[in-house]
Amino acid sequence: MFKDALKDIVDRTDGGLAGLLMDSSGIALETYSKPDSSFDINNVGVEFGVVLGSIKRAAEMLEAGTTQEVAINTDKLVTIIRLLGDSYFLALTLRPDGNFGKGRYLMRTAAPKLLAEL
Amino acid sequence: MFKDALKDIVDRTDGGLAGLLMDSSGIALETYSKPDSSFDINNVGVEFGVVLGSIKRAAEMLEAGTTQEVAINTDKLVTIIRLLGDSYFLALTLRPDGNFGKGRYLMRTAAPKLLAEL
Repeated sequence: MFKDALKDIVDRTDGGLAGLLMDSSGIALETYSKPDSSFDINNVGVEFGVVLGSIKRAAEMLEAGTTQEVAINTDKLVTIIRLLGDSYFLALTLRPDGNFGKGRYLMRTAAPKLLAEL
Repeated sequence: MFKDALKDIVDRTDGGLAGLLMDSSGIALETYSKPDSSFDINNVGVEFGVVLGSIKRAAEMLEAGTTQEVAINTDKLVTIIRLLGDSYFLALTLRPDGNFGKGRYLMRTAAPKLLAEL
């Protein structure tokens, strides 16, 4: 179920490389990677997952409400993270020339279904 | 010059609230806020600016290259941060229903001109 959802998001996003569902302690529940992904999606989840806690605290300090999504663009990689409640998050990596908007859209629409299963 | 550039980005982005140019030590060089912005753009810059350092380090750990842009969506606020070299960043806040894509585009095209003046 989770694997299919990740595969659907990655494969339907132009330039999509890999997807992951992780809990906030950095343990992956499920991952899916295309063969041409040069980044280990587990490492991406762990590294950026650590930063998520700081972002959530910063948003709380600002009274900006719950953090829904964080996107990080670097020279070589775009990572979109969507928070699923307090304890889980979904991450998608894509090439910098990939379809960022489509990736965000697919993650946003998949989130309620995934959250219902967690 | 900086004020005009910030005003241009904020006013031309539907739902744009405020813009800021800040150095990495959390000192604002320039800000521009619409009257209806309920968030202090200086506070947003300081809070999320602290997180930027962690994000840059995480991207380095992943060998993903230089961090270009970070976007944080919460219930009440969207914040787009574009890094200008190692020492400065540009931030734009907009309403959650604002035009995220337009904001990103205007920041990306303004960045080289701003960087040339820094």
